[in-house]
Amino acid sequence: MTKAALLLTVLFLSVGCKEKAAKSMASSTVANAEGLNAAIKKAEPGDVIVMSNGVWKDVEIKFRAKGTKDQPIILKAETAGGVSIEGASYLKFAGEYLVAEDLHFKNGHTPSKSVIDFRISEDEIAFNCTVTNCVIEDFNQMHRDETDLWVQFWGRHNTLSNSYIAGKTNRGPTVRVNLEGIESMNNYHQIVNNHFGPRPRKGGASAETIQIGNSFTSMAPSYTMVENNLFEECNGEVEIISSKTNFNEFRGNVFYNSEGSLVTRHGNYCTIDGNYFINDSNNTNVGGIRIVNSGHWVINNYFFNIKGEKFRSALAVMNGIPKSPQNRYNQVTDVVVAYNTYVDCVSPWQFGVGTNIDQKDVLPKSEIRSARPIRTTVANNVIYNEVGDPSPVFEHDKADGVLFKSNVINNQGVAFKDFDGGIQVASLELKEISKNIMLPTGVPSSVEPYEGFDFNTITKDLFGNSRANNNMIGATLKADVPNPNILDKTKYGADWYSNVVETKEPTTHAVASVSELQQKIDAAASGDIISLATGVYELDKSLKINKTITIQSAADDRAQIVFSGAVETPVFELNPKGLLTLNGVVLKGNGENYAFATLKENMSNHFGLTVSNCDVSDFAYALRVYREAYAEKITFTKTAFDNCENGLELSEETLDKGDYNTEYLTITDCTFNNIKQNVVDYYRGGYDESTIGGNLLIANSTFTNSGGHEKNKTLLNHRGIVNVNIKDNTFKNNPVKFVSVLWGAKNNEHSNNTISHSGEIKVQENLEMTLMY
Amino acid sequence: MTKAALLLTVLFLSVGCKEKAAKSMASSTVANAEGLNAAIKKAEPGDVIVMSNGVWKDVEIKFRAKGTKDQPIILKAETAGGVSIEGASYLKFAGEYLVAEDLHFKNGHTPSKSVIDFRISEDEIAFNCTVTNCVIEDFNQMHRDETDLWVQFWGRHNTLSNSYIAGKTNRGPTVRVNLEGIESMNNYHQIVNNHFGPRPRKGGASAETIQIGNSFTSMAPSYTMVENNLFEECNGEVEIISSKTNFNEFRGNVFYNSEGSLVTRHGNYCTIDGNYFINDSNNTNVGGIRIVNSGHWVINNYFFNIKGEKFRSALAVMNGIPKSPQNRYNQVTDVVVAYNTYVDCVSPWQFGVGTNIDQKDVLPKSEIRSARPIRTTVANNVIYNEVGDPSPVFEHDKADGVLFKSNVINNQGVAFKDFDGGIQVASLELKEISKNIMLPTGVPSSVEPYEGFDFNTITKDLFGNSRANNNMIGATLKADVPNPNILDKTKYGADWYSNVVETKEPTTHAVASVSELQQKIDAAASGDIISLATGVYELDKSLKINKTITIQSAADDRAQIVFSGAVETPVFELNPKGLLTLNGVVLKGNGENYAFATLKENMSNHFGLTVSNCDVSDFAYALRVYREAYAEKITFTKTAFDNCENGLELSEETLDKGDYNTEYLTITDCTFNNIKQNVVDYYRGGYDESTIGGNLLIANSTFTNSGGHEKNKTLLNHRGIVNVNIKDNTFKNNPVKFVSVLWGAKNNEHSNNTISHSGEIKVQENLEMTLMY
Repeated sequence: MTKAALLLTVLFLSVGCKEKAAKSMASSTVANAEGLNAAIKKAEPGDVIVMSNGVWKDVEIKFRAKGTKDQPIILKAETAGGVSIEGASYLKFAGEYLVAEDLHFKNGHTPSKSVIDFRISEDEIAFNCTVTNCVIEDFNQMHRDETDLWVQFWGRHNTLSNSYIAGKTNRGPTVRVNLEGIESMNNYHQIVNNHFGPRPRKGGASAETIQIGNSFTSMAPSYTMVENNLFEECNGEVEIISSKTNFNEFRGNVFYNSEGSLVTRHGNYCTIDGNYFINDSNNTNVGGIRIVNSGHWVINNYFFNIKGEKFRSALAVMNGIPKSPQNRYNQVTDVVVAYNTYVDCVSPWQFGVGTNIDQKDVLPKSEIRSARPIRTTVANNVIYNEVGDPSPVFEHDKADGVLFKSNVINNQGVAFKDFDGGIQVASLELKEISKNIMLPTGVPSSVEPYEGFDFNTITKDLFGNSRANNNMIGATLKADVPNPNILDKTKYGADWYSNVVETKEPTTHAVASVSELQQKIDAAASGDIISLATGVYELDKSLKINKTITIQSAADDRAQIVFSGAVETPVFELNPKGLLTLNGVVLKGNGENYAFATLKENMSNHFGLTVSNCDVSDFAYALRVYREAYAEKITFTKTAFDNCENGLELSEETLDKGDYNTEYLTITDCTFNNIKQNVVDYYRGGYDESTIGGNLLIANSTFTNSGGHEKNKTLLNHRGIVNVNIKDNTFKNNPVKFVSVLWGAKNNEHSNNTISHSGEIKVQENLEMTLMY
Repeated sequence: MTKAALLLTVLFLSVGCKEKAAKSMASSTVANAEGLNAAIKKAEPGDVIVMSNGVWKDVEIKFRAKGTKDQPIILKAETAGGVSIEGASYLKFAGEYLVAEDLHFKNGHTPSKSVIDFRISEDEIAFNCTVTNCVIEDFNQMHRDETDLWVQFWGRHNTLSNSYIAGKTNRGPTVRVNLEGIESMNNYHQIVNNHFGPRPRKGGASAETIQIGNSFTSMAPSYTMVENNLFEECNGEVEIISSKTNFNEFRGNVFYNSEGSLVTRHGNYCTIDGNYFINDSNNTNVGGIRIVNSGHWVINNYFFNIKGEKFRSALAVMNGIPKSPQNRYNQVTDVVVAYNTYVDCVSPWQFGVGTNIDQKDVLPKSEIRSARPIRTTVANNVIYNEVGDPSPVFEHDKADGVLFKSNVINNQGVAFKDFDGGIQVASLELKEISKNIMLPTGVPSSVEPYEGFDFNTITKDLFGNSRANNNMIGATLKADVPNPNILDKTKYGADWYSNVVETKEPTTHAVASVSELQQKIDAAASGDIISLATGVYELDKSLKINKTITIQSAADDRAQIVFSGAVETPVFELNPKGLLTLNGVVLKGNGENYAFATLKENMSNHFGLTVSNCDVSDFAYALRVYREAYAEKITFTKTAFDNCENGLELSEETLDKGDYNTEYLTITDCTFNNIKQNVVDYYRGGYDESTIGGNLLIANSTFTNSGGHEKNKTLLNHRGIVNVNIKDNTFKNNPVKFVSVLWGAKNNEHSNNTISHSGEIKVQENLEMTLMY
């Protein structure tokens, strides 16, 4: 079905007999908020309110009206996408059978807690209302910690369809379904045919793309349908979808290069049927399905190249906490995993994920996940591994409560534990349907599908073919199928919008004097290059970086920026969306100012920093990242730091809610000499088993005469960072007690470092941390 | 509908087209277990297996077969009730469409964990099977602590109907529905038209009449229907029905003089619709409905004369524990209490029940119930009080999360808190439909029913009349109705059985010599009187009491029993069902034997003891009650205890699981002199907020020279007993430190006691006790 046809179908289904309704429609065009309010106030069933094309700034739309099933009231743009809603704006619904379509939310943020809300107040709730063919883009609060939602569901039978939503950086799920109150249970909401575009890593929790309920309403029947959506690079946190209520259904969605998983975090009896989990690279953050709680059915799903492990494995089945508190981890029971296909996934079935029995000395009893899955069946699945996997089932804790039946694997001859014959070897072949849909063929006819209780309710395969006759194990009955074109973006989201960006060659802007430096930066397009002629640039004011830009020396003889700016001001002021690459430049301060710093506040979007072949000397801070600023990557390579009071400072996220300032801090081939404190200080606070973040690599670098002012007598500080690798470095004559204190229980490693007169590297197995919950 | 008609309907509904099926039935009569097993083995759809009338002893029936909807396989008695199944016996089902009917379980117990079981093993489960027109009576294990169930549900669509079930004394619910495993969720079991006869108090927890699930399966959808049952004196514990799963329905049941409540202990979204809660006396243990968790609807119920308070109030809405562990108390949310009628109930609406914020010093944080009900609506109810009630809403904690709307009360002019007009005064009148169905009339037409969300789903009243037009608040739309005869026992249970016992005059048996004493006791009918001629009875063997019997002196000059029985043997050996009343008899021991004692074990049924106008002297124990023995009442009045090493000993329930040995220990107008220890020792151990038991009254009695051997230096020991009243006594020259240590937080009182040289009465607010959960 084409995107347009799909859209038509949805509209037809969601608003009823549109054509018939059209006959009695009154259409009024409004040009401003006043007119809009007036039109809404007098809206009758069948009315269409048309917003004139243009920018609507600071508009708070309370769409409060009552349509009918046959005659909804429609609020729409004059032409699809022609209305952009900007500034401090929102759209809230109350009433019945209302439709908003074709709107573009950008260049702004909501002044309330949500951009689109299916209620106006506790007593004014929406039922049978629809948002469709809309776009919400980068509509972020100014501060990362300020929580909001972009689409908030209340009531029953509301729909978000065919919309494109991307770019949320601040705290809070993109879409949340709320269930507080009888009006919002048994909601049967539809989240369908949307394109959830990139949601960048947040650097901490509360950045799901969809959250359905919360632990306090985790007992509630929800029946929310999430179907046929594309999730593209939804990297906000480890949970792409966090299902926290009962009877939700996830069908036919495509999870593409998305760093996280579909997680049944709370609630029970969800159906995860016929979804695609696709990873095009070796990115180990891309996950699959993570299971907590009871009664879920995971069937007909297709997993391609999922390299995630533990929390991020293709199928992660967690250990629970015995008699768990309501907001923690219930035991997994009565789960069925059947008729799925896994191609080239790393240990696709991981059981006992999250077990932390060995941390019982540092955690309270009510935090210990020791309850293994029980009454769980894994049957009729197919695994194909191009490279054999010694543990297709990885047991973090024993999978002794799991029944394996009629599963088949091509493991390239590598031996594995077969669970009483529940996983049989077969010489499968792959049939390529598309680049990332490769279907295993050749399941021996001797392998009969296991008929577990209620398995007869699994009537179709991934492609919708009937399993009634000649049923087969695996997600698909046959491999002889047309390309389902699941990554054709025109099938999802708004029909008038595309997120495909054409690549263009960067323009190089030559700069020879300090006076034209900021001017050329401002004039450059995002992605352009500023080329500095050799010479000394005496700069007294910060350079504002608010786009993707490369600044580099034109010649081998490196340009030199001597900065006389005020105390605590930086050479490079990193603004939201400011992604700076600096190459081959010498930076020299006055001992009181900074080389690089973010804004102190209002970092509403991410920055980024890559520095290579530079010298950085005589600053109060080489880099200072303030609270709530976040970069996906900060990289220093072949760069020398000399004579600074502080080095790389990323330790101001001290609320201990799991947040941190960059996902990847990478330091290679650098030298640090006479850096007094915060040589490297990168911090994540708060015990949170599900924020798996922070990556620090320090390699092939030399540290000398540094850390003397560090109160904790540690040269490299990275407390709470989960992934740390310190290797091939030289530490010499640093007046500290420890080079580094590594967190043994996590992925902290060190190797091949040369240490003299610099203390030692210590490994501490478990850290005591603040409990976040 | 008559009972027979009802039965017919049920059979028709449950087994399908019986008449059609009859045509192809093969009927085989079997006379013993062997024949039965053979018949079951070859049973085909439509077969009827007939058990010959008579006693079937030690028969373990595994009814493993497959009938069809139209042609079930029926196992039945030759004539209804003609087969009694005795000894170590059970009946277990596996398969489909099986029916067992007309059987009488008595004089025995199950050798397994259940008498009737809807599965044979984990893999052999029953679906669409029915037990109907059966009786289970006193089918108790030998020991109270031995846990079993009389009817255990597994699978789906099974039915227990038209059966009479009574007399369970040992640990374990009478009926339990299990939900472990996919096969047993969404079970839609039917428990209908049964007569649950008296279940005596157990003296501790785990004595529900029906339990549906447990905390570990509390997330599971159950959909069990409990409809049109009579619960008569179901006094086992505080929960008559303990609903622990989701979507259960309780409709049209009659709770009659039953000491306990229908409790939504775990699980959510239950419907409690059109039930009767009737109390014919001033018994304050008879309760109504107790609410925990979310989403329940309590509608169209009728409450008459419910005098219970707190846990036992007509409507008790509990406080929850914030983020409660799975097995404790979730917060109450989203509950609706609408269209109920309360006549002469004490503070029918109690909120914040179970709050224990003031015990935070003796309990862990995970035990503190501080989360008040939220999003809860109480609307359209009618209250009639013959005597005005200052607090129709009793707030143990604030009811600030509750919306009161359109409720009406006749409170006889007594002022009360009306919650913003949510409870209005009206001068209602009562119309008597029957002795305990009195319907308030005269609700002002100005009181419009409140239309809460989904209230339109309440389509009928208590009697099934449509609420579509001229709707009214209260359980009934009109008072001009015929007597529903809800207490006509022929409408419930097995059609061939009645539990109505004809009262008969007791026979008096004269006894003049010790030789005829035991002989006459043995020959007497239960309820008879043994009349002792004046004189001395030199007895050397215990008298065995295993029925209800009164032993009394024939003349004012009291008979005297001088007992030379062996060490540790009692004059009166209290056996199961031995209820002894002893009046005007002098008992004298040899210092090493006992006056009264239970069996050391095998107390499979309750005993009872009432002693008045007696002298008890020179015994090692005046009374010794062993572990697992239980009496509903033990009473001593106008009786003198002298020169005994031990007095009244009821403290052997030391497992601290909430059990104790008698519900009521009453001591009035007695004297205790030179009783060395255990003068009164009555113990309940284990912290359990829901076992509200133990009642001790010591009044108008005199204690002298006693307690000298008591290690804890306390004369009266009653640790853990919830209700204690010590009043109008004299304590003189007792070498102890404390007369008594009372539990201030519970219902422990003392007044008007005269104490000299006997220590003091101390009140301790909170006791530290073992946690049971």
